[in-house]
Amino acid sequence: MLERIRIVLIGTSHPGNIGGTARAMHNMGLSELALVAPRCEPLTADTVSRASGADHIVHGARTVESLEQAVGDATLVVGASARSRTLPWPMITPRALGERLPAELASAEARVALVFGREDSGLTNAELQRCHAHVHIPTNPDFSSLNLAAAVQVLAYECRQAWLGQQESTAQAEVLPTQPLASHQELERYFAHLERTLVTIGFHDPATPRQLMARLRRFTLRARPERMELNILRGILTATEQQAERRE
Amino acid sequence: MLERIRIVLIGTSHPGNIGGTARAMHNMGLSELALVAPRCEPLTADTVSRASGADHIVHGARTVESLEQAVGDATLVVGASARSRTLPWPMITPRALGERLPAELASAEARVALVFGREDSGLTNAELQRCHAHVHIPTNPDFSSLNLAAAVQVLAYECRQAWLGQQESTAQAEVLPTQPLASHQELERYFAHLERTLVTIGFHDPATPRQLMARLRRFTLRARPERMELNILRGILTATEQQAERRE
Repeated sequence: MLERIRIVLIGTSHPGNIGGTARAMHNMGLSELALVAPRCEPLTADTVSRASGADHIVHGARTVESLEQAVGDATLVVGASARSRTLPWPMITPRALGERLPAELASAEARVALVFGREDSGLTNAELQRCHAHVHIPTNPDFSSLNLAAAVQVLAYECRQAWLGQQESTAQAEVLPTQPLASHQELERYFAHLERTLVTIGFHDPATPRQLMARLRRFTLRARPERMELNILRGILTATEQQAERRE
Repeated sequence: MLERIRIVLIGTSHPGNIGGTARAMHNMGLSELALVAPRCEPLTADTVSRASGADHIVHGARTVESLEQAVGDATLVVGASARSRTLPWPMITPRALGERLPAELASAEARVALVFGREDSGLTNAELQRCHAHVHIPTNPDFSSLNLAAAVQVLAYECRQAWLGQQESTAQAEVLPTQPLASHQELERYFAHLERTLVTIGFHDPATPRQLMARLRRFTLRARPERMELNILRGILTATEQQAERRE
């Protein structure tokens, strides 16, 4: 699924942002990048530095003249937009976009293009109107302009989340082997041991319990102790009792 | 809610990443930054350039020497971790973290600290073991190291999503009054007291620790102790120590 999601950058000015985009893509398992009329040399030392090992994505990027060429084969084109423009367009949140991807990419020929505009001015109205929908990353209204690579990072993250969600549901819940939890019986033995010890060291008087054991139970049960952890705790109780016994 | 979420960067090497972090934070409405023993001058031309108008966050950042100083008052400390280490710790996804935040921050004194490690080596095991939970941003296993500011971007985005979700549910039920949780500092004092006591009663030999304290930390942190519960536990430790002292 992820291999059929394309990131399209239009009119990028800073090679560092292309490198940062490549890193964010590779981190999230995306690989296809298209650069539309970049306003800088795409591959510079800055690109390689920010890509931090993902510059093969820039090497493999297709550089084209127009948005049309970059998204021609896409079955869903989504433009990243800071705000709704004059003509309202279908808007989706990054999360809703992610949730929609598995269905959008169900057929093997399907292609999704996520389009990002210029650092300074975003996408033009003409470009936005070539998109099926606009995605808006919710931001602080007083400081809404995300760094280009950061915006790619957020959407790529939502793509990966969607893909992982799909993996989980298809590959059936394969329960991870965890440490065995203590049984009810083991817990009760522990609580009895704990109470005896607290009496022994003079911390607890069953005649005036003041909810002490209830509080310790609630605390312990909340942690869902593993059997091994309970063994450690009982070891501590035994060592404490031995102290008290030696004293007598 | 967002104003009580603190971003903590440990041992950062590149001023640009501090600037990128500030921009990501301000974009998502976060404002509190702490820098622990930065390995670079935090405020350089690179910082200001990458912050792109959010450098007031770096100006207002607290620079401290240790993690303790940065998270002492936090009621939930979450460390960003690339992978699970030798001793598995409670792991949450960024999304689950976000979903948990409104409840975590329901009380006005609650503070959440999100801790990010060094660009080259992340967080140390000692640092990770001071966290209630670890958050792992799902990545391509072949290329898993996110840029620091990109990692902050993803978690800050999930924080904002959670906050927006909370805003939407305006008719939310009244938050139940809960007991105040123990702060990081109170927990660390408890762990120090616990270790002293275990040495006193001969249960623990710091020369051959065998992960005893790590296991007890993990168990205790998982339960999210209330301040009052921690007071009970410290009372038990004091009573235990008194037993040992009387014996001598």
